[in-house]
Amino acid sequence: MCFLCVCYVSVGVQYCVCVCEELISSFAFRKQWRRSSVVIQNTSKTPTGVHSPSRETMSSPKPQEGICGLAQAVGPESWSKVSCPCCISAQVEPLVLIQLADNVQPNTKQWLMAMISANQKSGGAGLLAHPGEDASWGRIVVAAPRCTLLKATEDLGLCKADKDGNMITFSFNDLDNFSSVDDMQKFLTLAQRQYIVKYQLESMRAVRDQRIPGIAGDKGVLKSRQNIFQKLQKVRVILDVFPLRDEKKLQALGREWYSQKRLWGQPLDSIHTYFGGSVAFYFSFLDFYTWALVPPAVLGLFVTFFLPKWGSTDGNKGDPFVPEAIPQSPEADSDQPVSGLMVQAIFSMIWSTVFMELWKRRSAALSYRWGSITLTERFQEPRPGFQGDLGINPVTGRLEPLFPDWKRQVRVGLVSLPVVLLFLGLVVLGMLGFYYCEAVMSSFHKASGSIITAILSYLPSIIHIVYTNMLGNIYRNVAQRLTDWENHREESSYQNHHTLKVLVFTFFNNFAVLFHIAFFKQDLNLLRKRLSSLLILSQAVNQFTEVFVPYIVDRFYGSAEKELKEDDPEADHLQAEGSLPPFPGLFAEYIELLVQFGYLSLFSCVYPLTAVLLLLNNITEIRGDAYKICRLFRKPFSPPESGMGVWQAAFEVLGFVSVVSNCWLLLLAPRVQALTDDAGLSPATVVICAVMVEHVLILLKLILAFMIPDEPDWVRIKREQIEYCSMKAVSQKVSITMLIITCSAHVTSLYLL
Amino acid sequence: MCFLCVCYVSVGVQYCVCVCEELISSFAFRKQWRRSSVVIQNTSKTPTGVHSPSRETMSSPKPQEGICGLAQAVGPESWSKVSCPCCISAQVEPLVLIQLADNVQPNTKQWLMAMISANQKSGGAGLLAHPGEDASWGRIVVAAPRCTLLKATEDLGLCKADKDGNMITFSFNDLDNFSSVDDMQKFLTLAQRQYIVKYQLESMRAVRDQRIPGIAGDKGVLKSRQNIFQKLQKVRVILDVFPLRDEKKLQALGREWYSQKRLWGQPLDSIHTYFGGSVAFYFSFLDFYTWALVPPAVLGLFVTFFLPKWGSTDGNKGDPFVPEAIPQSPEADSDQPVSGLMVQAIFSMIWSTVFMELWKRRSAALSYRWGSITLTERFQEPRPGFQGDLGINPVTGRLEPLFPDWKRQVRVGLVSLPVVLLFLGLVVLGMLGFYYCEAVMSSFHKASGSIITAILSYLPSIIHIVYTNMLGNIYRNVAQRLTDWENHREESSYQNHHTLKVLVFTFFNNFAVLFHIAFFKQDLNLLRKRLSSLLILSQAVNQFTEVFVPYIVDRFYGSAEKELKEDDPEADHLQAEGSLPPFPGLFAEYIELLVQFGYLSLFSCVYPLTAVLLLLNNITEIRGDAYKICRLFRKPFSPPESGMGVWQAAFEVLGFVSVVSNCWLLLLAPRVQALTDDAGLSPATVVICAVMVEHVLILLKLILAFMIPDEPDWVRIKREQIEYCSMKAVSQKVSITMLIITCSAHVTSLYLL
Repeated sequence: MCFLCVCYVSVGVQYCVCVCEELISSFAFRKQWRRSSVVIQNTSKTPTGVHSPSRETMSSPKPQEGICGLAQAVGPESWSKVSCPCCISAQVEPLVLIQLADNVQPNTKQWLMAMISANQKSGGAGLLAHPGEDASWGRIVVAAPRCTLLKATEDLGLCKADKDGNMITFSFNDLDNFSSVDDMQKFLTLAQRQYIVKYQLESMRAVRDQRIPGIAGDKGVLKSRQNIFQKLQKVRVILDVFPLRDEKKLQALGREWYSQKRLWGQPLDSIHTYFGGSVAFYFSFLDFYTWALVPPAVLGLFVTFFLPKWGSTDGNKGDPFVPEAIPQSPEADSDQPVSGLMVQAIFSMIWSTVFMELWKRRSAALSYRWGSITLTERFQEPRPGFQGDLGINPVTGRLEPLFPDWKRQVRVGLVSLPVVLLFLGLVVLGMLGFYYCEAVMSSFHKASGSIITAILSYLPSIIHIVYTNMLGNIYRNVAQRLTDWENHREESSYQNHHTLKVLVFTFFNNFAVLFHIAFFKQDLNLLRKRLSSLLILSQAVNQFTEVFVPYIVDRFYGSAEKELKEDDPEADHLQAEGSLPPFPGLFAEYIELLVQFGYLSLFSCVYPLTAVLLLLNNITEIRGDAYKICRLFRKPFSPPESGMGVWQAAFEVLGFVSVVSNCWLLLLAPRVQALTDDAGLSPATVVICAVMVEHVLILLKLILAFMIPDEPDWVRIKREQIEYCSMKAVSQKVSITMLIITCSAHVTSLYLL
Repeated sequence: MCFLCVCYVSVGVQYCVCVCEELISSFAFRKQWRRSSVVIQNTSKTPTGVHSPSRETMSSPKPQEGICGLAQAVGPESWSKVSCPCCISAQVEPLVLIQLADNVQPNTKQWLMAMISANQKSGGAGLLAHPGEDASWGRIVVAAPRCTLLKATEDLGLCKADKDGNMITFSFNDLDNFSSVDDMQKFLTLAQRQYIVKYQLESMRAVRDQRIPGIAGDKGVLKSRQNIFQKLQKVRVILDVFPLRDEKKLQALGREWYSQKRLWGQPLDSIHTYFGGSVAFYFSFLDFYTWALVPPAVLGLFVTFFLPKWGSTDGNKGDPFVPEAIPQSPEADSDQPVSGLMVQAIFSMIWSTVFMELWKRRSAALSYRWGSITLTERFQEPRPGFQGDLGINPVTGRLEPLFPDWKRQVRVGLVSLPVVLLFLGLVVLGMLGFYYCEAVMSSFHKASGSIITAILSYLPSIIHIVYTNMLGNIYRNVAQRLTDWENHREESSYQNHHTLKVLVFTFFNNFAVLFHIAFFKQDLNLLRKRLSSLLILSQAVNQFTEVFVPYIVDRFYGSAEKELKEDDPEADHLQAEGSLPPFPGLFAEYIELLVQFGYLSLFSCVYPLTAVLLLLNNITEIRGDAYKICRLFRKPFSPPESGMGVWQAAFEVLGFVSVVSNCWLLLLAPRVQALTDDAGLSPATVVICAVMVEHVLILLKLILAFMIPDEPDWVRIKREQIEYCSMKAVSQKVSITMLIITCSAHVTSLYLL
């Protein structure tokens, strides 16, 4: 047990350290930011608010005014010019901020702005750039003209509502068929507009060998087809890129989301509009999962309070939160036909299957609703980090780096996979080593019994924790490098492979001990105690970091902001923007849910109140996460996504593991053991029966998963409509040139007449 | 063992009865056919060969001339007229024969011919019909004009080679982009042309309520949108429809395929051209499977002859074909580190995975090569047997019967699945009952020992065989009805569900005994004996029915044909056509391979020569099957297919079962038992270890399956090219009407000028 305690303390400390680090970095960043902007203001000598006729400098809109306020400040005349007549508009919406290094030369900034404004044929991004206060000011504000947004919508394969309200794949040529194409703020969500800007920036490629002005030496050389944005990030010209927040919308969203008193439901569409696909899918899943916890929670309460308990002769009968001892002798409940454990185990298996199948349906419906049903990432430009020999992509016919799939597959299979397995082996080895050392130490302590040996008996735990931490750090590094080296063409594929690697390791780290107790020690009582204390402790830590800390930070942060304003009344909106730490991504959030789901589906039968605790936790988790992403971090870029990606698979795999685990726990159940003892079956026969039951259950699970369609009928019909239209479009593809030739021939003949 | 003998005898007898039935039906059919045609010739009083000016009667081309000969005979002027100018050609190729009932009125035949020739808007098939010898002659010869063929090619979603040689989805509007579109015989394969005729015939639907001329009463009423062809088959106007054979091509194919002496390789492209997709995929798989048997055969020979054998002290050491006894005492081979059984078991698991993955790749390559990579069955008209309320299909916008998917899913899940499970339960119950009765009888016999009890001891076997046969017959009936009732929209889905039902049952019937021996009796020696005798006996029966019988039949049939010719010199080509029995389908062929594959992957480790025997069997099997389909049966219609459909899944499932089975057999291996005994492990611990190994192996199998891509890189690129083109086509879909309006506006303005 001392190992566990140390573990908990270590987890708690790690959490706190993380939070503190975030806070510190946030303030360090803020300070640095403020300092740098002051330096810039000193060097540019242009007091904000004084308008020079040639270019509009930025006034200081109040942060509350958000993008709209900024739009008024950053007047249209100072933006780079648009070539396309339909894109000229009175008001330009600033979407993304590029943070440059302090030492960047004005001519480098000018060159970069020219590239951003240049059209895509000449290697540019086709966007609008604004120098901010000054040509030497270390930031560039970027906006997007209408045509670029529309074309990128088509490139990304987004679906948009047509005049009849059906979501169909957007087509630039068929523009008139779609609704609200004149108002980009209605047509695309804020998150989509901002993602498109990032997408356009990242697809800038040099059209020929050239030099970046203002950067000396080899660092300034750009080869033909080299990714400009990646290069500038590598040579530290661009420090950061992030979407601008819209304070007004954010406040409205916050009111709807976490400030209200309602317990259920989240404004998912608003979240999708403001934060984009991946964030919206995370919160949708969290929402769905919380709902899905109600049946197991009710059952858990029923089993705990109404079914005659195991160990009903125990003293702590009245308090269900105290883990009860499971009697080793089965007499205690041999008069009832089923025990709570059996009910829970069987329910867990069915529940996890049905839950995942229903979520798939929900996910398909959301994906249709948010227009991400026909994404075409594989036909887009490769992600910036993709390496390969330049060549013609056989599918799209574009010149781009190429890398054969089989090579990647070989790297994944023959290098990454063994390395990951090696690390998993090291985790298991560490655990076994710890148990061995602990046994040695405790026997040693028992033999001598001095204070020194008592202290020494903590040594294995400490060594194990240090070992686990070191291993974790090394592994994270290795996983990152391996995934880089695997050289994935698509960002989503890169993310999936990286996530999968970290995920498997984290999962192993979290569950190795519980599996060890359940399958090797075969001690249900210990499992029960450990599970319940793990749950309660991790919930407490979780509540602390996700609800209490944000609250404190908010008060602190709020006053800090106030102080900032009083201190420096000209501090502009963009400054407040950059002062927040970047969003750390959804990995930690998802892994928390996955570990929860693991506790529930794998082991909950020994502790029926798991679902109740998780339910309570999730209700606060939703608010906490919402508050965190809205207030504590910078707004992240969030690509349109059609689902949870690799997380979906992870949850499904857990569903299968749950069948194995529950079968095993059933086998260990005192009630079942009593039955088999009565029947006079040998242990080997009982195990064989359990294995057969397990196989049959897995088969039934597969059949059940197969029987429940992965998407609702109406989504299937809509998807098939899109596919049918696409098929028809191919067959109706009259060669347009032919038609034009015929027409011009007619016209010519008319002329001759 | 007596049960087994009776089983074998019963199997043998069943095989023979089947073959005889086929032969008898073939000759009965031939006789009836000849008689009916004589009747027709008597009533029509038109001696063949005398040409009337108004319509061309059919001359009697020699069967060797095939379709070409027939084309000369059935002159173009007697065909129904084509409306489309591009379809008029000097020569019409007869493709399909419709056999009418004897009592069909001439006006019914005329009406049917009119419907066949009518265009699709008026509910017709858009084909060409020829009355044959006479208006009252009970057959209609059908051909297809060019436009119908091309449009159907697009409807079916077939891929065809474009001018650059890439296979892309055919588009009628983009005709000029494809090669050899002027010569239909080059553009489409014979099988495709014939399938298109069937497809067109089956899609005839009444456009309004009407009566079929010449059919009295309710039988003659056609409701609006009712399927005409299905109706005519129901009221027994149409007895049969079959594709005409091309004797010349068939002979060429036969020479290439089974008459040559070469052992390996089949003319797969020619098979695809002549017989079509499903047949070609079967033979491709058979070919691939035969190749894939080489490594296990070599290993089997190595294990049998080079590894020190189990029971090396036995007397029958020299003869590997005699099943050896596996010593119950492990001393015999305890001096060697691994036994042949272990090598075979591990090899089997890897081999079955790699084999299926490589076949998937091969299948994808073939599917691309044969232009069936983008089939669009779900966008076509529903299959004729599909029932539902008339409504607008939301996807295609056509008026057709509709039936909600969820209803079908519910029927499959809540009715079909339990019924199938019930029958499987009955099979197991029958087997257990048999074992029980046998035990009772033998103890009874031992007690009394008279002749009567000796005879009585055969009773359980006989009852069991009768029971199994009855159950099988009932089940086939039930499976058919259930699948009908499930009301599948697509023919392929119907076939898959039906096949799956019959398949599972057949598989259970075949393997229940072996599984019982392996898992309950746990007697490896008995398993070995039974497997080897099952293999050798079934091979013998198989060789007999598939090689010897065809040979005899050919001699007999050849002389019959000769006799026919001499006997009736005017008997025409069409007569010879109809005299063969219809092809019974590929189910029996596939199930034979599946059962073979099951013996090999599940149990071959106890009898290493399995693969060698199967390899020998398959080499003759290829010739036998080829001969059968070419010579003994009428040519079947064969839809274009993109793979093996449900059989693929069946083989893959068997791969997973093989892991379980091999792990179990490993556990029973004397060598492993000796090891565990030496280590002093309890039986329960050993079983648990085996379960863990099994789970890890299944995981590895999944990883391996995931690592080997399902299609070769080049096919993936081609497929993605097609998808990319389709995506681009959607985005380039300029509203053509808009363009035309603009053009006409220009023209008008020019006029005004």
